[in-house]
Amino acid sequence: MQNIEAYQKSFVAYLEDFAKDREPVNLYEPVNYILRLGGKRLRPVLTLMTAEIFGAQAKEALNAALSVEVFHNFSLIHDDIMDDAPLRRGKQTVHEKWDINTGILSGDAMLILAYQLFEDYQPTIFQSLAKLFSKTALEVCEGQQYDIDFETRHDVTVPEYLKMIEYKTAVLVGAAMKMGAIVAGASEEDQNLIYDFGRFLGIAFQLQDDYLDAFGNPETFGKQVGGDILENKKTYLYLKTYELVTDDEKSEFLNLMNTSSVSNDEKVEKVKRLFNASGASAATQLAVKDYTEKAFGVLEMLNISEDKKQVLKLFGNQLMNRRV
Amino acid sequence: MQNIEAYQKSFVAYLEDFAKDREPVNLYEPVNYILRLGGKRLRPVLTLMTAEIFGAQAKEALNAALSVEVFHNFSLIHDDIMDDAPLRRGKQTVHEKWDINTGILSGDAMLILAYQLFEDYQPTIFQSLAKLFSKTALEVCEGQQYDIDFETRHDVTVPEYLKMIEYKTAVLVGAAMKMGAIVAGASEEDQNLIYDFGRFLGIAFQLQDDYLDAFGNPETFGKQVGGDILENKKTYLYLKTYELVTDDEKSEFLNLMNTSSVSNDEKVEKVKRLFNASGASAATQLAVKDYTEKAFGVLEMLNISEDKKQVLKLFGNQLMNRRV
Repeated sequence: MQNIEAYQKSFVAYLEDFAKDREPVNLYEPVNYILRLGGKRLRPVLTLMTAEIFGAQAKEALNAALSVEVFHNFSLIHDDIMDDAPLRRGKQTVHEKWDINTGILSGDAMLILAYQLFEDYQPTIFQSLAKLFSKTALEVCEGQQYDIDFETRHDVTVPEYLKMIEYKTAVLVGAAMKMGAIVAGASEEDQNLIYDFGRFLGIAFQLQDDYLDAFGNPETFGKQVGGDILENKKTYLYLKTYELVTDDEKSEFLNLMNTSSVSNDEKVEKVKRLFNASGASAATQLAVKDYTEKAFGVLEMLNISEDKKQVLKLFGNQLMNRRV
Repeated sequence: MQNIEAYQKSFVAYLEDFAKDREPVNLYEPVNYILRLGGKRLRPVLTLMTAEIFGAQAKEALNAALSVEVFHNFSLIHDDIMDDAPLRRGKQTVHEKWDINTGILSGDAMLILAYQLFEDYQPTIFQSLAKLFSKTALEVCEGQQYDIDFETRHDVTVPEYLKMIEYKTAVLVGAAMKMGAIVAGASEEDQNLIYDFGRFLGIAFQLQDDYLDAFGNPETFGKQVGGDILENKKTYLYLKTYELVTDDEKSEFLNLMNTSSVSNDEKVEKVKRLFNASGASAATQLAVKDYTEKAFGVLEMLNISEDKKQVLKLFGNQLMNRRV
């Protein structure tokens, strides 16, 4: 087994040659641009790591890992258009640097390129990977649609929210790991267990992201702390607060979220106080712990050595113990 | 063998159940809307017909046929956004009826659904279909990009234009037929020949479309005759005219295309006269004939009975003898 930095390094080296010098230039330049913006390469690293855990060489899983990363970046391009986002990793988004049409078409090409990356695997592996990929990709689209739907709905429940983040974020983490297992020829049982491990960890990660968006350290969080509050985003903290408070407090909470008569800083402070007082903050931290433990529980059932379970556990703990 | 109407009928019946009652509704409603707008269902009919020609039952190819139609409609949704088109088959386009974000996301879902439709085929057939699909889909994106690039270029050559229409339109006709051949277990040689038959016929069809846009019968053509001329589209007629005229006539032609001092009717009439006088009209008709004959030439090499060759020839002649 290698460490995370080693997987990152070999992945980035492999990425280097991808889609280089393809024509038409106006279609492939944005593909190369977004893929080379950087990032932690979390998903492809998981694919490589999982392949090794189930006894393959990491390099056998490079094409599957790249497929996951290309798909992830396809979804970023199209989501950024839908969200009208100007920046991605501190740089211009594709539709800002070029235009919306370029973002649409280059994104489409990336979705197809992601499938093509499976072509060198033999037919049964190919079919397993492509089926998993299609199921996952469709769920990511469905998650994005739920997210859009939630913006204009006022009766979103916590279970609906959990399904949304599972689809939009967590299934791709599960799929990234399962692909490594498929390439390595792991049993179907192990494939499904590692998928669940990744999926639960993905949910925990997203819930923690919700928590840190309000309570993270502004010095290190990377995004504007309180950003979700200022956008009135229906996060786990928001929905849990709404669920836990009395009817009177509900209208007070909604008034606060929708007012424009207090400053941004004041709004963030007041809402955070309510998140704490309602018990929503504690509930969110508990949910993060719950899903992390669910992931570790699945780990126990895997048919791999204790050493390898420890590798995965270490990875999970590193991921969840960020207090940024 | 069945006739075209019978294939259309069984295809439309099969389409009926597709993506029905799926959630989230806001993602799948536009999918159902565009797929049920009608149309000749030319591509899926070709898949079914080709499957029968190579000895399979048409129903074995229904999923492949549906995949081609779903992909085609995905490309229509995204192209209509890029072209800012208000109407499709006389009805509102998806982004007009809903919005651009809906068009992007529902289109993405359709591209994935198209791949999923191969999943019931056994692994080697699945891989053949998916590989062909990815190659074709990527070429369609590249063709669309070339088409966009050509709008702002002034040095587009006839060979470049032919490559553009091959990618944007013709390869999907070839692929639709090849998929029928793959499902039927035809030899690789026959698969490639039927692909070329469809591809050449697709090019001939598009060139004829260019011709009819200027010289078709306004009563029956379905689109506004002269529409390409008024949009200054660099069609085969346009590029061939530019190629054939003298340098003096070139500037006269460009002035005419870019002037706003004559009425639409006058512009169309004058440009058509130049298309004729330059020999571009005759050259276009010749190119249509050439590509049709290329298609029929490929037919001769196929390892199928004379009867079946006649079925394909009849289909090709019906397609090309429209004088609408």
